[in-house]
Amino acid sequence: MNLLNETLKKIKPIDRVVNEQARKRINNLVKPKGSLGMLEDISIQISSITGKLIPDVTKKSIIVLSGDHGVCEEGVAAGLPIVTVVQSYNIVKGVTGVAALAKQAGAEVVVVDIGINNEMDYDKIINRKIRMGTGNIAKGPAMTREEAVKSLEVGIEIAKKEIKRGVKLLGTGEMGIGNTTPSTAILSVLGGYEPEEVTGVGANLPDDKLANKIKVIKKAIEINKPNKDDPIDVLAKVGGLEIGGMAGVMLAGAANKVPVIVDGYISTVAALIATSIEPNTKEYLICSHASKEKGASCASEILGFKPFLHLDMRLGEGSGAAIAMNVIEAAVYMNREMITFEESGINAV
Amino acid sequence: MNLLNETLKKIKPIDRVVNEQARKRINNLVKPKGSLGMLEDISIQISSITGKLIPDVTKKSIIVLSGDHGVCEEGVAAGLPIVTVVQSYNIVKGVTGVAALAKQAGAEVVVVDIGINNEMDYDKIINRKIRMGTGNIAKGPAMTREEAVKSLEVGIEIAKKEIKRGVKLLGTGEMGIGNTTPSTAILSVLGGYEPEEVTGVGANLPDDKLANKIKVIKKAIEINKPNKDDPIDVLAKVGGLEIGGMAGVMLAGAANKVPVIVDGYISTVAALIATSIEPNTKEYLICSHASKEKGASCASEILGFKPFLHLDMRLGEGSGAAIAMNVIEAAVYMNREMITFEESGINAV
Repeated sequence: MNLLNETLKKIKPIDRVVNEQARKRINNLVKPKGSLGMLEDISIQISSITGKLIPDVTKKSIIVLSGDHGVCEEGVAAGLPIVTVVQSYNIVKGVTGVAALAKQAGAEVVVVDIGINNEMDYDKIINRKIRMGTGNIAKGPAMTREEAVKSLEVGIEIAKKEIKRGVKLLGTGEMGIGNTTPSTAILSVLGGYEPEEVTGVGANLPDDKLANKIKVIKKAIEINKPNKDDPIDVLAKVGGLEIGGMAGVMLAGAANKVPVIVDGYISTVAALIATSIEPNTKEYLICSHASKEKGASCASEILGFKPFLHLDMRLGEGSGAAIAMNVIEAAVYMNREMITFEESGINAV
Repeated sequence: MNLLNETLKKIKPIDRVVNEQARKRINNLVKPKGSLGMLEDISIQISSITGKLIPDVTKKSIIVLSGDHGVCEEGVAAGLPIVTVVQSYNIVKGVTGVAALAKQAGAEVVVVDIGINNEMDYDKIINRKIRMGTGNIAKGPAMTREEAVKSLEVGIEIAKKEIKRGVKLLGTGEMGIGNTTPSTAILSVLGGYEPEEVTGVGANLPDDKLANKIKVIKKAIEINKPNKDDPIDVLAKVGGLEIGGMAGVMLAGAANKVPVIVDGYISTVAALIATSIEPNTKEYLICSHASKEKGASCASEILGFKPFLHLDMRLGEGSGAAIAMNVIEAAVYMNREMITFEESGINAV
């Protein structure tokens, strides 16, 4: 609890002075004012986060939190829980979606076992297992409040470690078969949606099993009665360990002035948790892709996110965050490499 | 005319056999089927274009065609024509939008004077000037039919040169103050739109001058009577030299099995010309960003493009193509670096 509280105390609004300076600089770059759109916004945001007019984001890292979900026994996921194990290994081997895309983006990938329901080999995976997967939320809470706090703190700790070794841009990712179910439960509670409005097929759940998934989510909310004004209670009762971990990464980024990229659905739900705990966190987050998962657009809307990658992706793992790193780097290059109108000898339009 | 005809003869449909093989491979990569969305489509498309199951796009180049527009004397552009000159120099100096973004993407930028209305220094800019800017389309044709063919051939020639030196992925860009006006005239004619439906403010034309821009476009179509069934006639009568050049790059890409990235509005209109001349060209084009310019979405729709970058950009120069190169490279990495289900030891879902 100390690490969480210390972190929350450190989260301040972004730098308004640098924000103004950055906006002025970007408006004076040799292009019609506003013509690079969101690239300009991202550049200004990163300046305001880091406090640096010309920031650097060369060293990048994607933190992938892996955890299992007791609720899988209700038949809410097409994949078997063993996939969480196999894919966690495959990520560190460099052969999954996020691994391939991170390689292209020049980012490292860190995999953390925050709650895989299996004994693991910790040669390349970081061991921060809090428990062997969550409890079945259709029957009781996912975890205790202490475990939920611990999941946030694991994310904080790992992110701090990455920042300490020089990482300037963080991405969030996850691996956890079944995790669209707790994510949708969280979105329903924090966003005030009926589960049927926001429940999707996740990783190819057959359509005829969707009704059951909705029923399970409703039951989870009914049985556990999460308090929507207490995000840690929501995380503990209907959430997931990797969701807490991702929220922790976001809080740590905000506390340490490092931008954090939100990935797809699960990650956006983690952002809902993080910003509900500390609203100033939002200014430190950069959204990435518009996930095809049904609830994703609702979750983004609550946060005021405008995802700029429309690739119909719904893999998770941090795959969208990896691609977005290129765009964010492009924004930084725009800021650093372009000259101003004064330097160019033409008048602004 | 020989170069154009030879090029058109070489354009064939993409490789259906490799298309099937590529689709099978992508479907077997270790992820829920379809979960990497358009990244999968792009990967399959590039395999089908190149005929290689695992293609390489490392060597990348953006060809920027620069040309001026006589119609500027009608007050249709906020920028002065001298900006075409200054920015062409600034691009090769590496200090404009496309230059900065190409640097991030690891792409080279080639600038071609295809019709700048000014004497130029050809130290770093390639001289293929066809004429000193187009004629004022509100008073007569932009150029002769021979000049229109020549503009296509300049694009073809430069693209072939790039391909010959090993470029595997081409981007199209332009610099030409006033060029949203001929682009909108072309879109109106080929797409069957009234100019008021598709005319936007381009590079920050004040709103109160928009009505005049629409009037000028209407007049250009009325006076020149372009034949909508003859794309070269449309290009000659209401088009632009750099628009023809971009269309030529696209035709050359298709003829030589090299994917070509369509940038924003002007480039999408050039794609309309290219695909009207030879419909098979379309399968060789990859769209990039959804330009904020008013007519862009209509132009994309005609071509069946689904731009995947939603950054509210409207700079041109090839800036969107540069960013898209990252995403296309990501698709290639996905294809190359990920293992299949068979190799991973888990079953597909």
